[in-house]
Amino acid sequence: MKTYKKGILPPGFQASAISCGIKRSGKPDLALFFSAKPALASCVFTTNDILAAPVILSKTHLKNNNRFQAIIANSGNANCFNAKTGLKDARETTRVLARALGLKQESILVASTGIIGKRLPLLKIKRGIPKLIKGLSSPGIDKAARAIMTTDTFAKKFSLKFNAGAKEITVCGIAKGAGMIAPNMATLLGFIFTDAHITQAALNQALKIAVNNSFNCITVDGCMSTNDTVMLLANGAAGNAKIHGGKNLDLFVRALSLACLELAKMIVRDGEGASKFIKISVKYARDQQTARAVALSIANSNLFKTAAYGENPNFGRIASAAGSSGAGIREKDLKIKVSPLKKKEIDVEVALNQGSASAVVYTSDLTPEYIKINAAYN
Amino acid sequence: MKTYKKGILPPGFQASAISCGIKRSGKPDLALFFSAKPALASCVFTTNDILAAPVILSKTHLKNNNRFQAIIANSGNANCFNAKTGLKDARETTRVLARALGLKQESILVASTGIIGKRLPLLKIKRGIPKLIKGLSSPGIDKAARAIMTTDTFAKKFSLKFNAGAKEITVCGIAKGAGMIAPNMATLLGFIFTDAHITQAALNQALKIAVNNSFNCITVDGCMSTNDTVMLLANGAAGNAKIHGGKNLDLFVRALSLACLELAKMIVRDGEGASKFIKISVKYARDQQTARAVALSIANSNLFKTAAYGENPNFGRIASAAGSSGAGIREKDLKIKVSPLKKKEIDVEVALNQGSASAVVYTSDLTPEYIKINAAYN
Repeated sequence: MKTYKKGILPPGFQASAISCGIKRSGKPDLALFFSAKPALASCVFTTNDILAAPVILSKTHLKNNNRFQAIIANSGNANCFNAKTGLKDARETTRVLARALGLKQESILVASTGIIGKRLPLLKIKRGIPKLIKGLSSPGIDKAARAIMTTDTFAKKFSLKFNAGAKEITVCGIAKGAGMIAPNMATLLGFIFTDAHITQAALNQALKIAVNNSFNCITVDGCMSTNDTVMLLANGAAGNAKIHGGKNLDLFVRALSLACLELAKMIVRDGEGASKFIKISVKYARDQQTARAVALSIANSNLFKTAAYGENPNFGRIASAAGSSGAGIREKDLKIKVSPLKKKEIDVEVALNQGSASAVVYTSDLTPEYIKINAAYN
Repeated sequence: MKTYKKGILPPGFQASAISCGIKRSGKPDLALFFSAKPALASCVFTTNDILAAPVILSKTHLKNNNRFQAIIANSGNANCFNAKTGLKDARETTRVLARALGLKQESILVASTGIIGKRLPLLKIKRGIPKLIKGLSSPGIDKAARAIMTTDTFAKKFSLKFNAGAKEITVCGIAKGAGMIAPNMATLLGFIFTDAHITQAALNQALKIAVNNSFNCITVDGCMSTNDTVMLLANGAAGNAKIHGGKNLDLFVRALSLACLELAKMIVRDGEGASKFIKISVKYARDQQTARAVALSIANSNLFKTAAYGENPNFGRIASAAGSSGAGIREKDLKIKVSPLKKKEIDVEVALNQGSASAVVYTSDLTPEYIKINAAYN
């Protein structure tokens, strides 16, 4: 498997991005992803009760259709909690784009990220669509990765290539994160493109596993967003023997999991105000759910996160956070190991001595910068 | 009912405090509460899996005994996560105190707050006990309220008097809070004294209700402590007709609830680094548990708390936090009202339109000062 810290779109995919004026800064804020031939899609969305309009609309399109050719994504406005206009505006976006591309509306997926509760500037988006389409290209993925950023400080891109039989399959992903990152999913957008030839069931299974082992193992501030979306398109252009199970599916799952994990780790590294990258491994738990609950309880503890920021080796806060997760931990069985806090990358190992299950969660520290960013954001 | 923002110990109780050297600052760090005659006790403790030694020991004494005459409490050291020495040290403290007071060991309760995982400086405590006993007095409650402080910036005291038939009953409480304050109970110590004549069952019932409506309705940082303890002693000195139920128990519950709520609010007002006092009311919920879950989800959202600090009226963050609690909220039914954020006291009202239950939770904002305090604390 060859890996690349950049975006390499598989054959048949193109991307594009423009500044249409949603962001006052004039930075890119509208991205388009296009598949020349109809592609399979698999998506994972937030589990928040309050769903952004693009999430609702994409879910509808996924229910009514099974081949997709475009994704349109904007930053700067979440198009959420806009009861009267949200869905209408998202629908109008896909209508205009569908007409311009000569597609049916339901073959388009939508995603938004940014401020909640403000009306989407629909006119700016509609006006930008012709230019967006004109700019489509394979290297366009780079600008698209920048156009989905909100408080991110760098674009998150990862690609890999691997062989399935005689054919080479490419997986290319971009993501945005920064704040409001917590399982399940948080304000995170991820767009992944592959030329794998694969069944819908195998694609769904692969994405579910990959997301569970990556985007759902990270937390920045414990806050779950209304807009979290991971979209995976597979156009089959690699011409490999159709993946439906067995060794080839294992290979594909491994490749997709790696791509998602690398993107997820970039999100943590770029957590709002983060100065530390923290890996929390919980071992010897009764079951995986317990291991995960303990790891997340530590990862979301403001006291632990500020201690990490202060390079203050406070084992008590780790013990206390672990003990508050309701896992039935016994103090005498609890072993905690922490790597030197002076470093930028910190490893926390917690052994529960209850069983043999384990889980890993990634998080960042909590810093004055996080507060500065979020006190001002609007 | 007459209320006082100071400590007025009921007849028969005395308190005392000294600086025994646990705190490097030289501030008071050891408090003693004494009841001249054996008193009933009712206590509520943290539900953390990891229990501090004083919690374990007090629970044992409460199981083996039913009359109590002293509580010894220290700040600066939580005596927690000290597997080999914790319980031995707590026990030795009660042994020395019992001998000096001529009591049996099991009539003493213990509480600690402060750093986790450092051995209790037992010798300093033992050496301080004679002076502590010598200083016992009714006004000693003031110094005792200061001696249980950690990062608190002011002592928390509240008293009230009410009539039960021809007799006047006094309730006097002190508390400490500041950080690690979350339901259930958090690093919170509360000591309440009453001269009410009451049955054990009624006393337990009253404390349970009062704590649920006060200390369990506040959150500062969502972190649950290993040491949370609320202790209530009732010496019967008021000479009222014994309270066992009915109207007099209602009166007592109301009085005790008010005392606990006032102390709980002081804890939120003094939350580490807090610049805002926030009341979150959730109304028209399916049931009380749902109302409470939604209120806590908002109260513990770092994004909401930083928005409050930034005086940034971000309704979206409230909606998103409410929606992430798993309450099954429908966007069209969700109504949010927020009082002006420029003020120090903020009211958030969330209507779910699912039913008729409601809940109130109090919290503070998340500020750079919180991080400063907790990055350095050790």
